[in-house]
Formats: sequence, structure tokens, C-alpha cells
Amino acid sequence: MAFSERVSRLKSSLIREILAAAQRPEVMSFAGGLPAESMLPKVQWADMPVALGQYGMSEGEPALREALAADARALGIDCDARQVMVVSGSQQTLDLAAKLYIDKGTEILLEAPTYLAALQIFQLFGADCITVPLQAEGPDLVAMRQRLEQHKPAFAYLIPTFQNPSAVRYSQASRDAVAALLDEFGVTLIEDEPYRELSFDGGSARPIVSGLKTASWIYTGTVSKTLLPGLRVGYLIASPDLFPHLLRLKQSADLHTNRLGQWQALQWIGTEHYREHLVTLCEFYRGRRDAFESALQTHFSDLATWNSPQGGLFFWLTLKQPLDTRTLLDAALAQDVAFMPGEPFFADPDANHGHLRLNFSHIDPARLDEGIKRLASVVRAAHLLQAA
Amino acid sequence: MAFSERVSRLKSSLIREILAAAQRPEVMSFAGGLPAESMLPKVQWADMPVALGQYGMSEGEPALREALAADARALGIDCDARQVMVVSGSQQTLDLAAKLYIDKGTEILLEAPTYLAALQIFQLFGADCITVPLQAEGPDLVAMRQRLEQHKPAFAYLIPTFQNPSAVRYSQASRDAVAALLDEFGVTLIEDEPYRELSFDGGSARPIVSGLKTASWIYTGTVSKTLLPGLRVGYLIASPDLFPHLLRLKQSADLHTNRLGQWQALQWIGTEHYREHLVTLCEFYRGRRDAFESALQTHFSDLATWNSPQGGLFFWLTLKQPLDTRTLLDAALAQDVAFMPGEPFFADPDANHGHLRLNFSHIDPARLDEGIKRLASVVRAAHLLQAA
Repeated sequence: MAFSERVSRLKSSLIREILAAAQRPEVMSFAGGLPAESMLPKVQWADMPVALGQYGMSEGEPALREALAADARALGIDCDARQVMVVSGSQQTLDLAAKLYIDKGTEILLEAPTYLAALQIFQLFGADCITVPLQAEGPDLVAMRQRLEQHKPAFAYLIPTFQNPSAVRYSQASRDAVAALLDEFGVTLIEDEPYRELSFDGGSARPIVSGLKTASWIYTGTVSKTLLPGLRVGYLIASPDLFPHLLRLKQSADLHTNRLGQWQALQWIGTEHYREHLVTLCEFYRGRRDAFESALQTHFSDLATWNSPQGGLFFWLTLKQPLDTRTLLDAALAQDVAFMPGEPFFADPDANHGHLRLNFSHIDPARLDEGIKRLASVVRAAHLLQAA
Repeated sequence: MAFSERVSRLKSSLIREILAAAQRPEVMSFAGGLPAESMLPKVQWADMPVALGQYGMSEGEPALREALAADARALGIDCDARQVMVVSGSQQTLDLAAKLYIDKGTEILLEAPTYLAALQIFQLFGADCITVPLQAEGPDLVAMRQRLEQHKPAFAYLIPTFQNPSAVRYSQASRDAVAALLDEFGVTLIEDEPYRELSFDGGSARPIVSGLKTASWIYTGTVSKTLLPGLRVGYLIASPDLFPHLLRLKQSADLHTNRLGQWQALQWIGTEHYREHLVTLCEFYRGRRDAFESALQTHFSDLATWNSPQGGLFFWLTLKQPLDTRTLLDAALAQDVAFMPGEPFFADPDANHGHLRLNFSHIDPARLDEGIKRLASVVRAAHLLQAA
């Protein structure tokens, strides 16, 4: 069997296996990043034009690109619709970026921890991952400068707003400093913002790309966290030097994104009813966050520390007594509890034990306390075993 | 600007530029492969479950996979639903196959001519294209054996039914011989069948994969030519040794295919109203084929030869006096006529002058004769210039 060299790096996806196990209805899952079913908006399809059944443009629907560009400009991103491409979920942006930049051994700069599925696709293409530790307000800037002095990464991939998995939101000062560093060293920025709209304290900060003066950039977002993930509609906005390459790569990947989802997204983006929906959604998730934090305080105060997430979908726990949290998984699933071990979110998993990513958006509130209690008991049992 | 090595092979897509030029409403286009708008079926969305808005499985919707497997078994393909993956249009199958097999310099076996967008993605990943000439009943089997004796291709990519661009349909004997050769040399088959259902003479032949005994295989199809391309729903069926790898590649490409299109496809696949729709569709396109052939006979008899296509969407013309048909494009567009030069359908374009691919499904019948007449005049003018 003569597969490509890259297939040797095609890892079994831990999250796939966990999510498969979490399909059993009795499982209390903190593992995925699913929206709450009750908050999926009712959508109408009756007015969709028949002509949308035909092939469309690789760039995406013109009206949707205009609406997305207007939204981005309101955030401070200097762009027009010609720089916007609709993609088949923002995961596709990572695939296109990997194709554009990564050969075997290409250095890239990532946060530690970072989004697991980004790590997977970048490593599949053979990236050599240089990492910068995340702190409460953003990346360690001293470490970042040091990395940029010592390496020449093809790009930096950052998730500055309610990061997955850490829930960190970069401060405005941190964003400005990161932009200045990337300009200084001429490093392209890929800024991934799936959670920007899910802010619980109303706070916000400008996208980092809006602060770049000379570096190239790709900004990517999605409607999956705010409307319907099943639409598979995301978007990227790129500096004009990158766009033509990304467009050809998009065309060869899947010709264009499905037009049904694009049409539905257009019914929402930039409208008053979307703004109202987002307010309701953030209130709802803030409530879930609060309930989750209460359960954590009851059962995990002695076991772990965490920062209360101001947005997004996850708590990121740091165990006071570190252990390889992947070893907890079988015991947790035996107790009908699923969670995401922290290790796969690091380019070097074995050097980064002792974190858990817990999703708070999707769990049934009636089973929340029981689930957290069982998970705590699994951690306690592992500590006892460790001590024995 | 440090792009990946593969980007140096990211060609400007001629077809993108032609299709962009063909957007002007006054242009009579024979260039694309679009279904006729009047034959896009009216579809209903009212009954679609709200739950389809949530994230779905990377494999695709279970019920759709079952329906596709049943259809494939009816064609003679020994498979079950676990081997079926829904993809975001069958173009995505080519992307996944390229990732699975192709490193820089990997040899692959292709028909000459072959599907232009397949050539693009395979070459983007660095494939070294070994080609076998197509004849009226299938590939030149002597040449194919010779290539397999001299090379070790990672896979053979074939389009045996109403091939794009040549409209060739392999005979059953040719299919059997190809299957035996691939088994003998242990070469994986990727069989692409977007046009299988569009048969005008009712004739058919079994998929080649159904005749394989030991070789690995991927079979791929789509609803884009029979229902609505805008859904972006295709599928692949793979031998069990390949499926797990393809699944992980699918997950990292776009998580899963949009569920709206999958639900719509499921309303049709395997149903009586789909069979009725296909009968109507084939009758309609047969009529368009006949009208097109009349126009060709009127204006092109002295200029080119062709075989009447028994299915699919294209006529493939061979000029009696060969010339580089790419050089005709500007003159044709100046006459408001668009067509596809034949050269980009060959791995070695400069060694294969003198073909035109003409789409007959999408042209307005009222403008057909005028368009063909103008195209013929462009060819005549080029011949005069050549002679001068």
C-alpha cells in the first residue's frame, strides 16, 4: 500500500473517538463544542430562490460577501467584498492555509495550547510547530519575540477571542503588541475568530488583523456558533496578495460552498433580528456558564484552578496535581461521562499534562451537577492511584 | 513571500477565466458543464427537521449512506453503508485522494484526455502523470499494460461512463479488461462517475470497481448532474482498507458535508419520483444533443470529426486541421461565443492540439445555431491565418 508520506502523520483523532463514545444517550458529555439544541434558531426556507440549485461562484454569493465585508469593516478590518471568500465551515480555511503555506518541515507559530483540529491539519501537511505560551491577557510577548528572532515561521495562527481551548481573550494592548511584532518580522497572521460574537460581559477588542500595517493576513469566522453549524458556512477575508491563491485552492477543494447555507446566512448577517438573536444567545450561554461554574466550585475547587470564561463555549481546568488526563478517559466513559483531555491541544502533548477542556454549552442542566461530580470522582481516584 | 512548494504548480485556471467571461448575458457559452436551468427540479424544504441545523457526522447522514449503498449494490458494487462517505461534491473526493496518495513525484495513471479539474488537483500535489490514450470503446489496453509494466502508479483515475471531456463510454469488455489489469498489477482504482445516470440510449455497463477482485478502490458519484449542483452533495464508496484514512482526511478538510443538501438528496435517492425525473431528464438532454448535432453537421462537417455522445453533457470535436485551440479563445469571445479548448484536458497540453469540448446541456436552443455558426467562422478564420 503506497500512501503519501503525509499519511504517516494522519493520527487517529482522539476527539472523534470520544465524540463517538459520547453518542450513547446516557453519556453526559463535556467533550464537544456543540451549540445548545434549544438555541438553534428556527429558520425559513420558503423564500429561497430556485436558481440557487445551479452551480455558484467559488468566491461565494456576491450579496453575502458584501454583508460579511460590511460586518468586518465595522470591526475595524479595512477590506472590501473582493477580499471575502465563503468557505465550507471555517475548518476549510485551515485546509486552504495548510495547502498555501506548509511543506514538510515548514515552521509555523502557534499558541500553546491551540485548537486541536488546526494542529491536526497543519501537522498532516508536515508543519514544524513553534509555540508561544498563552497567559491570561494573551501570548507571552517576550517568548513570542524570542521565537520570531530565532525562527522564520510561514505564519502565526492565533485565536485571540475566547480561545479554544483556554477561553483566553487577548487584551487590546496584547493585540496591538502582537500586530507590531508580526509587522516587524514580516510574518503572515491567520486569525481564527469562531467565538467573537459569544461575549458574556459585553467586552470586545479589535481583530489583530485590523492593527497590521504591512504583514499579510487571513481572518476567518463562521456562522456555526451563532446560527446553525449544519449549514457548513464560514468565511475568510484575506489581504489582496493572498486572495487569488486561496481562491484557486478553494476551487480545487470543492468548487464552491453549498448555496442553501449561504442563502440562509444572508437572511441573518447584518440584520436586526440577528443582533437580537445574539443578545438572547449570549444571555442564555452566560446562564449556562454560571451554572457550570457553580458545579465546578462544588466538586472541583480542591482539584483544579480555572479562569471564568468571558465568552466562548469552554472551561479550561488546570489540575493542582498534574497527571496525563488521557489516562482518565476510560474511567470517565465507564461512568458515562465524556470530556476532552488537554494534551492533544498541545504540539507537544507529553510535555503538557494536567488540563481538561470542558464544554458548558451543550450539557443538559438537569444532569450537569451529576456529570461534574462523577468527573471529579474519576480525578480523585486517579490521584489515589498515583499516590499508591 | 514564503508559500509552499506546491503553490508553484497552482496554475491560473483557464476554465475559471472562460466561465467568468461567459457570465456576460450576451455570451453564447458552450464552455461549462451546467445543467439546464429548466430541468432543475422543484424541491421542498418544509419538512426538513430542525435538528439538521446541529453538527453532523463526518461520514454523512446514516440514512443517506444506506440509500447510496443500496443504489451501488444494484449496480453490482459489493459494499455496505459503512463504506459510503458523503462528500461536499465529488470534486472533494479528488482532493481527499490527492492527500491520501500524492507526494511530489508520485506516479499516477490517467486517461488522455481526462477531467481538467482532476488534473489540476493531482498536479498541485505534485503528481507525475502517466497517460493512456482513449479510444472509442475505452483506453488503449496495449498501452495500458505497457504503462503498468514500466511504472508503479499509486492509482489509476478513470471516468468510464460518458467521460469528461471525450464522452467515451467504456464497453463492458473494456471494463473487464481494465479491472483484470489493475488486479494483476495491484493498482488502486479511482472511478469517477458523475454522468452514469445521463444515458440517452438506455445502455449501461457495470462500474469497473465491481469487477475488481483484489485491488483497492474508490468509487465516486454526485447528485450535481441529476438534481441540484448548488446542494454540493457527492459521495464516495471505498474499499474497507482505504475508508478510515479517507474519513480522517474528510474530517480535517471540512468536518462534514452540509446537512441540508444531504437531507434533500435523501428525499430523491432510490425513490420512484427520482427514477421518473431521470427519465424526463435523459429525454430532455437527448433532444438537446440531437439539436446540437444538427447544428454541428451544418457548420462543422468540413472542419471537425466527432462521435455522437450517448450520454453526459459534452461533444468532443477533433479538428481536421489541428491548431492550438487556446489561440481561438479571444476571437471567439469577441464574437460572444465561449467554448473549452481541448489542450488543458491533457497532462501534456502542447502535444495535444486540435480538440474542442462543447457543452450541449445549457445553451439556449434559440441561440444554438448562431453560436455554433460563429464558432465555426472563428475556426475558419484561424485556418486562413495559418495558411497565410
